[in-house]
Amino acid sequence: MENPEFIAVASIIIAGLTIAIGSLGPALGEARAVAQALAAIAQQPDESVTITRTLFVGLAMIESTAIYCFVVTMILIFANPFWEHAVAQAGG
Amino acid sequence: MENPEFIAVASIIIAGLTIAIGSLGPALGEARAVAQALAAIAQQPDESVTITRTLFVGLAMIESTAIYCFVVTMILIFANPFWEHAVAQAGG
Amino acid sequence: MENPEFIAVASIIIAGLTIAIGSLGPALGEARAVAQALAAIAQQPDESVTITRTLFVGLAMIESTAIYCFVVTMILIFANPFWEHAVAQAGG
Amino acid sequence: MENPEFIAVASIIIAGLTIAIGSLGPALGEARAVAQALAAIAQQPDESVTITRTLFVGLAMIESTAIYCFVVTMILIFANPFWEHAVAQAGG
Amino acid sequence: MENPEFIAVASIIIAGLTIAIGSLGPALGEARAVAQALAAIAQQPDESVTITRTLFVGLAMIESTAIYCFVVTMILIFANPFWEHAVAQAGG
Amino acid sequence: MENPEFIAVASIIIAGLTIAIGSLGPALGEARAVAQALAAIAQQPDESVTITRTLFVGLAMIESTAIYCFVVTMILIFANPFWEHAVAQAGG
Amino acid sequence: MENPEFIAVASIIIAGLTIAIGSLGPALGEARAVAQALAAIAQQPDESVTITRTLFVGLAMIESTAIYCFVVTMILIFANPFWEHAVAQAGG
Amino acid sequence: MENPEFIAVASIIIAGLTIAIGSLGPALGEARAVAQALAAIAQQPDESVTITRTLFVGLAMIESTAIYCFVVTMILIFANPFWEHAVAQAGG
Amino acid sequence: MENPEFIAVASIIIAGLTIAIGSLGPALGEARAVAQALAAIAQQPDESVTITRTLFVGLAMIESTAIYCFVVTMILIFANPFWEHAVAQAGG
Amino acid sequence: MENPEFIAVASIIIAGLTIAIGSLGPALGEARAVAQALAAIAQQPDESVTITRTLFVGLAMIESTAIYCFVVTMILIFANPFWEHAVAQAGG
Amino acid sequence: MENPEFIAVASIIIAGLTIAIGSLGPALGEARAVAQALAAIAQQPDESVTITRTLFVGLAMIESTAIYCFVVTMILIFANPFWEHAVAQAGG
Amino acid sequence: MENPEFIAVASIIIAGLTIAIGSLGPALGEARAVAQALAAIAQQPDESVTITRTLFVGLAMIESTAIYCFVVTMILIFANPFWEHAVAQAGG
Amino acid sequence: MENPEFIAVASIIIAGLTIAIGSLGPALGEARAVAQALAAIAQQPDESVTITRTLFVGLAMIESTAIYCFVVTMILIFANPFWEHAVAQAGG
Amino acid sequence: MENPEFIAVASIIIAGLTIAIGSLGPALGEARAVAQALAAIAQQPDESVTITRTLFVGLAMIESTAIYCFVVTMILIFANPFWEHAVAQAGG
Repeated sequence: MENPEFIAVASIIIAGLTIAIGSLGPALGEARAVAQALAAIAQQPDESVTITRTLFVGLAMIESTAIYCFVVTMILIFANPFWEHAVAQAGG
Repeated sequence: MENPEFIAVASIIIAGLTIAIGSLGPALGEARAVAQALAAIAQQPDESVTITRTLFVGLAMIESTAIYCFVVTMILIFANPFWEHAVAQAGG
Repeated sequence: MENPEFIAVASIIIAGLTIAIGSLGPALGEARAVAQALAAIAQQPDESVTITRTLFVGLAMIESTAIYCFVVTMILIFANPFWEHAVAQAGG
Repeated sequence: MENPEFIAVASIIIAGLTIAIGSLGPALGEARAVAQALAAIAQQPDESVTITRTLFVGLAMIESTAIYCFVVTMILIFANPFWEHAVAQAGG
Repeated sequence: MENPEFIAVASIIIAGLTIAIGSLGPALGEARAVAQALAAIAQQPDESVTITRTLFVGLAMIESTAIYCFVVTMILIFANPFWEHAVAQAGG
Repeated sequence: MENPEFIAVASIIIAGLTIAIGSLGPALGEARAVAQALAAIAQQPDESVTITRTLFVGLAMIESTAIYCFVVTMILIFANPFWEHAVAQAGG
Repeated sequence: MENPEFIAVASIIIAGLTIAIGSLGPALGEARAVAQALAAIAQQPDESVTITRTLFVGLAMIESTAIYCFVVTMILIFANPFWEHAVAQAGG
Repeated sequence: MENPEFIAVASIIIAGLTIAIGSLGPALGEARAVAQALAAIAQQPDESVTITRTLFVGLAMIESTAIYCFVVTMILIFANPFWEHAVAQAGG
Repeated sequence: MENPEFIAVASIIIAGLTIAIGSLGPALGEARAVAQALAAIAQQPDESVTITRTLFVGLAMIESTAIYCFVVTMILIFANPFWEHAVAQAGG
Repeated sequence: MENPEFIAVASIIIAGLTIAIGSLGPALGEARAVAQALAAIAQQPDESVTITRTLFVGLAMIESTAIYCFVVTMILIFANPFWEHAVAQAGG
Repeated sequence: MENPEFIAVASIIIAGLTIAIGSLGPALGEARAVAQALAAIAQQPDESVTITRTLFVGLAMIESTAIYCFVVTMILIFANPFWEHAVAQAGG
Repeated sequence: MENPEFIAVASIIIAGLTIAIGSLGPALGEARAVAQALAAIAQQPDESVTITRTLFVGLAMIESTAIYCFVVTMILIFANPFWEHAVAQAGG
Repeated sequence: MENPEFIAVASIIIAGLTIAIGSLGPALGEARAVAQALAAIAQQPDESVTITRTLFVGLAMIESTAIYCFVVTMILIFANPFWEHAVAQAGG
Repeated sequence: MENPEFIAVASIIIAGLTIAIGSLGPALGEARAVAQALAAIAQQPDESVTITRTLFVGLAMIESTAIYCFVVTMILIFANPFWEHAVAQAGG
């Protein structure tokens, strides 16, 4: 393996793009859910407890996809098995 | 096989893109389902039990596609058969 | 065949993209079906049994396209005939 | 024919993209049909038999385009005449 | 003709893309027609016979464009005149 | 003319793309016309004869653009003057 | 002129793309006009003669742009002045 | 000028693309004008003469942009000053 | 200046693209203005004179942007100062 | 400066693209303003003088951005300081 | 600095693209503001003075972004510090 | 590792793109939530306390995705493990 | 540093693109705000003072993003630290 | 590190693109919030104090994403750790 910096470069590029692209969907999705929750409260104030509870469950589900992306980003930066292999091989 | 780092680079790039692109659809889809559930509860509070149950079944189905992507991402990073073959061959 | 790693690289790249792109359609489609089902229940609570049954049949049909993509992804990673041919040839 | 792996690489890339792109249309299309069927049942419960029958015919037609893509994907992976020719020539 | 595998590679790539792209239009189009048919039945149940007949004629017309793409895909894989010429020349 | 396979490759690529891209417009267009015809029948059942006749004329016009693409595809595969010139020159 | 096949390749590529891209607009446009005509007939059956006549004039105008593309495609395949010049020069 | 075929190739490519892209706008535009004219006739049958006259003036204006593209296409194929210069120079 | 055909190639490519892209906006824009004029006449027949006059002023303004593109196209083909400089230099 | 034709090529390419892209916005924008003016006249014929005056001020503002693009195009073709510098240097 | 024409080429390309892209936003934006002003006048003729005044302030703000782009374009063509440095260095 | 500046270049490029792309989703999402909150307050002023509280929870969730991107950007610029490895190796 | 003109070229390209892209958002955004303000004045003339004041605060916020882009453009052209370093190094 | 200008070029390119892309979202988002606030004031003038307060909190949240991008841009231009390392190394 003569060019280990290719692995570093690829990890940096993908770490950033993963969280950047991966935050688009959850940000827009949560906004949609919150906006609809506000409209629902304005329309049916008596059900605000049920609406808020359903909203929080939904936000947790949507946020989970952002968490997946953040976890992969952190793995690529701080616990990248390919980089560790390259460093170990270079040091061996 | 003279350039095993190509396999590492490809695995890193695709691992990130898979979960990044794969989280767009579920995030937006779950947001749509949650938003409609909130609107349905505001319109028909008496059916909130049926609505919530149907919502959860739907969220599970939609989340399943995000899970597929996360599983493939994890396989590519931690259990990649092509990388293991390359490492075994290099060490053999 | 002098460069078998090209086959590995192509398999990795396409395995990820297949499930990533292939999960967009089902995720958005299932969300649409679920959202409409919730609206239908809110509008016609008495038909919730018929609605739920039709919804599940539809979700199964839509999920089937995600399954096709997942199957192809698994074949490319774990049962790839081109890779097996290359490995067999290299070992022969 | 000096580079038979090009045929393998092309087959892998296109096998994945075919089913990935080819599942977008049917997934979204079936979702639209199912969503409209649910709305129709909610609006006209007495016609649910006719609606369901027409829906199933339509789903079959839409699914057929996904089947075309899946068949081509399988042919490219497991019954690829160009690859067989290359293997036969290499073995001859 | 020194590089006949270029013809094989091009045939594989285009065979997949043709059916993949070519299934998008018919899938979405048939879904639109089916969805409108369901809405029409719900609105005017007495005309369900006329609606169903017109729907089937329309589905046949739309499916025809998918059939064109499938035929071209099959020709490119199994009855490709350029490939046969290359094979004949190589064997001659 | 030293590289006649370039002509074969270009013909294969364009033959597939022409029918693939060319089927998008007619498929979506015919679907729109059929959907509107169904809505018109549901709204004005007494005019179903006039509506059906106008629909068929329109479908014929729209299908004609798909036919143009199919004809060009067939010419490029089976009656390609550039390829015939190249073959004749090579054989001459 | 040492590479006449470049002219052949360019002619093939553009002949297909011209009719493929050029059929998108007319197909969608004619569908829009036909759909609106059907809606107009359903709304005002007594004016169906005037509507049909105006529709046919409009379809002819829209089809004319598809005809332009088809004519250019045929010229590029069967009456290409650049190709004829190259062939004449090669034969001279 | 050592590579006159570059001029021929560029002329072929642009001739096709000009009429292909240039027919999209007029086709969609004329369809919009015709569709609105049909809706206007259905809404106000007594003004059909004024509507038809205004429609024809508008179609002529819109068609003029398609004519511009067709003229440029014909100039590039049959009266291309750059190509004539190259041919004259080659023959001089 | 050793490669004057680059100037010719660039002029050809841009001449076509300018009028092709430049005709999209005016075609769609004029169609919108004409469609709205038809709707306005149908809604307020008594003001058809004022509407028609305002429409013609607007069409002239919109057409002016298409004229700009056509003028630049003609300059690039028939009165191109860069090409004349290159020809003069080559002949000097 | 050894390659002055690069400056000529860049000037030609950008001159055309500037006016082509720059005419899209004004053409669509003026069409929107004109269409709304026609709708306003149809809705409030008594205010046609105020509407027309405001429309003309708006059209002048929108046309100004097209004029900017046309001016830059003319400068690049006929008064290009970089090209004059290159010609002067070549002749000095 | 051995290739000063790169600076000239880059300045030409960006000067044109800046004003071309930069005129899209203001043209569409001003059209939206003008269209809404016309609708507001038609709806509330008595407030035409306030509406016109607010419109002019808004148009000035929107036009300011087009002015920014025009200023940068002029600086790049006629007062480009990088080009002046290159010319001074070449002449020194 | 012979080219450590590749790591620096990749870090700079991705640091900027991550926060640039990553701010699109939250900015648009928060705007949607705020806009809906304002509409809800205008519709149901008595519930402004509940609406504001739900809005703030939602904004915090949406802002969290922007924070993820900002954190990754800062890590890539100021605490980049790949760059530190390269610097340490170069200094060792 | 052997190629300082790369820095100049990059500065020119990005200076133009920054203000060009950066003016799209503010131009469209300010247009939306102004258009809504005009609609609000037409709907509620008595609140025109409050509406105008809120509009001006909003326009200032939106314009601030255009100012950011203009400042960065000016820094890149007239106060570029990288270019000054390169010039100082070349002159030292 | 033999090519330090690559770092300078990358910093310049990304500094501009970051603020350019990063200003799109906030500009459009703030416009949406302001527009909705104006509509809310016009609909419910008595709540203008609550609406204005909520609007300002929302604008601050949205503007924060633009600030993130501006901060990263300034860091890349004036406090770039990679550039300082390169300069220090070159001067050492």
